[in-house]
Amino acid sequence: MVIGKAIVAREPVHPLTVNWSLEEVDVNSPGEGEILVEMRASGICHTDIVLTSVPNGELGITYPKVAGHEGAGIVRGVGKNVHTVEIGDPVLLSFYSCSSCQQCADSHPAYCKDFAPGNYSGHPNRMSVHGSGEELWARFFGQSSFAQYSIVSEASVLNAKILLENDNELQLFSPLGCGFQTGMGAIENTTNAGPADTVLILGLGAVGMGAIMTAKIRNCKAIIAVDRVKGRLELAKSLGATHNLDTSSPDFTTLDDAVRKLLPNGVSIVIETTGVPFLIEQGLQSTHQRGKIVLIGVPPLAYRLSFDVTEQINTGRSILGCIEGDCVPQIAIPQMIKWYREGRFPVDKLIKFFNATDYQQGLNGMKDGTVIKPVLLWTGQ
Amino acid sequence: MVIGKAIVAREPVHPLTVNWSLEEVDVNSPGEGEILVEMRASGICHTDIVLTSVPNGELGITYPKVAGHEGAGIVRGVGKNVHTVEIGDPVLLSFYSCSSCQQCADSHPAYCKDFAPGNYSGHPNRMSVHGSGEELWARFFGQSSFAQYSIVSEASVLNAKILLENDNELQLFSPLGCGFQTGMGAIENTTNAGPADTVLILGLGAVGMGAIMTAKIRNCKAIIAVDRVKGRLELAKSLGATHNLDTSSPDFTTLDDAVRKLLPNGVSIVIETTGVPFLIEQGLQSTHQRGKIVLIGVPPLAYRLSFDVTEQINTGRSILGCIEGDCVPQIAIPQMIKWYREGRFPVDKLIKFFNATDYQQGLNGMKDGTVIKPVLLWTGQ
Repeated sequence: MVIGKAIVAREPVHPLTVNWSLEEVDVNSPGEGEILVEMRASGICHTDIVLTSVPNGELGITYPKVAGHEGAGIVRGVGKNVHTVEIGDPVLLSFYSCSSCQQCADSHPAYCKDFAPGNYSGHPNRMSVHGSGEELWARFFGQSSFAQYSIVSEASVLNAKILLENDNELQLFSPLGCGFQTGMGAIENTTNAGPADTVLILGLGAVGMGAIMTAKIRNCKAIIAVDRVKGRLELAKSLGATHNLDTSSPDFTTLDDAVRKLLPNGVSIVIETTGVPFLIEQGLQSTHQRGKIVLIGVPPLAYRLSFDVTEQINTGRSILGCIEGDCVPQIAIPQMIKWYREGRFPVDKLIKFFNATDYQQGLNGMKDGTVIKPVLLWTGQ
Repeated sequence: MVIGKAIVAREPVHPLTVNWSLEEVDVNSPGEGEILVEMRASGICHTDIVLTSVPNGELGITYPKVAGHEGAGIVRGVGKNVHTVEIGDPVLLSFYSCSSCQQCADSHPAYCKDFAPGNYSGHPNRMSVHGSGEELWARFFGQSSFAQYSIVSEASVLNAKILLENDNELQLFSPLGCGFQTGMGAIENTTNAGPADTVLILGLGAVGMGAIMTAKIRNCKAIIAVDRVKGRLELAKSLGATHNLDTSSPDFTTLDDAVRKLLPNGVSIVIETTGVPFLIEQGLQSTHQRGKIVLIGVPPLAYRLSFDVTEQINTGRSILGCIEGDCVPQIAIPQMIKWYREGRFPVDKLIKFFNATDYQQGLNGMKDGTVIKPVLLWTGQ
């Protein structure tokens, strides 16, 4: 057992508002197929917020728990039957998959049959509050990386020993395992976008920025970035966006109108990362014949999109659900690191580091749009 | 000018009911890019019924008109700038496309920018009622093939000279240009189904049967045929369906339940040809992770499908609109003829011939499900 700090998420007091506090926790020894990781850094993703702001029992969530699903650290202990890492290895963490169902066997682990229980619910008996012994649900996304030490499923681990030029890169690459990967995979895997494509990116968080960088790498003919935060729109331009649309501008009427002022026929691909219903609806309308909209951003719970079926038939449009960019992290993360080294996936421009004690500043920066990807540092806690 | 018989469609007297009559019409000489075809046979497709049962002015329809969009015949005259056929050539007819827009240039003519005006609306000044001179809207789908003689756009024509073993095959292959092609293309082009796929076919008209034969050709692992007519279900089995679901059976509860009794995880592909809202909705639910539903059957006008966006994201499902199977008729029709000669696309089992005067019997057979594809014969009128 080791003792360390962790962000404990308790049931929200105010609806849809997280209730986090940094506390000292006891971390058990790793069990079979598990690894004890000393975390260096962990990115905050919007899903951490969503899945700690629902009431207890919803979506399989039990409180108190430890969230965090973009982690990086050093292996400090290994359980039985762990084959891919040794003590001392640096690791990058991503989502959990069972490795044995049909979707996993077909290299689509993001659609693993155990995705929801294995990632959202987590497990008891790994962590407890130091002193009180209060049980914590851990192994969130196989990792619960909002912690100085955590028990991680081997399925969530990528051995980074041969990928890193120095240990400091763990901090830089820590958030690759979810948000950036999702945007990258939406372009690479879900749509296989190429030079003939015109791409509309709705929302410029890590997912949207990952999609923009990848669309640029794939030489998409037009890349239209959409957000309401000017700083993000400027950053998107520097990453490869060919056009910007500012939804906060007084000139902005509807998305479809704004897009067709730039491209009269509409776009071939929409990457929807916001979960905002009116953007989802207008995004679909912004596509031309045979256009595709990729749904990524989680909308308000139970929100239903409706569309005219005859129009869908006549236009040949596609509506595609997408989680984790349909990526295999063991392929996607090395790919993004390679692109980073080539200067084509500059995640360093998109990350802001915070001491883990200052997680609230990171959350604030996400909320007001000034920070794309807050990364919490666990060294020196 | 020639005189011949044609089925004249007038504005419906009773809502959603066709108002057809066989009349004598005058047919003008072909203009630039047009061909005068003496029709041998023409298939009746559900779209002929839909687009002659709406009120005048809806969907761009003007009455009186001559429908028919699965035709075959012999070239009897050519206008200026016709390059692909000569007088005396046998031709098979399909939908119209402009040949010059981006979708046409990209080999997706079913999504031509002029698809609706070029196919649904038709043109005046080609045909009129003999004697009264009453103007008829013709060139429906570039062809108005419910006529003994018709003016056909060259874009709708496939020269069949090298494809046919005898002129009688014109009758047999006349309906390949729409329904069968659509089902074939939904498997070949829209979903690219293969041996790992489990395919659910909703509705066993020509589209559904085309999909079943093609899924069999592509060795799909399971092919589940769904209809409410026993004879069609039996025929589907003989064409390659591995399972049948009879929606008229007292044991039938919901489609999703019935499918999961056969395949507990659901299917990978749904081909929806019925346009029946409850089948569309349950069809989507019948797919497993990363499953696809292809929407082909036209539902009641303005019907909107709604779905839970978060579920769509988590399942990675796709909803795909599809018209004409995304086919290039000049490729798809020779392909189907080749398969027919190999015994793998036995359209002869699916066609019933009627003298054109007996078109009402063909309509009745479609309605009660006893006829898959009625084909009207124009010889000897």
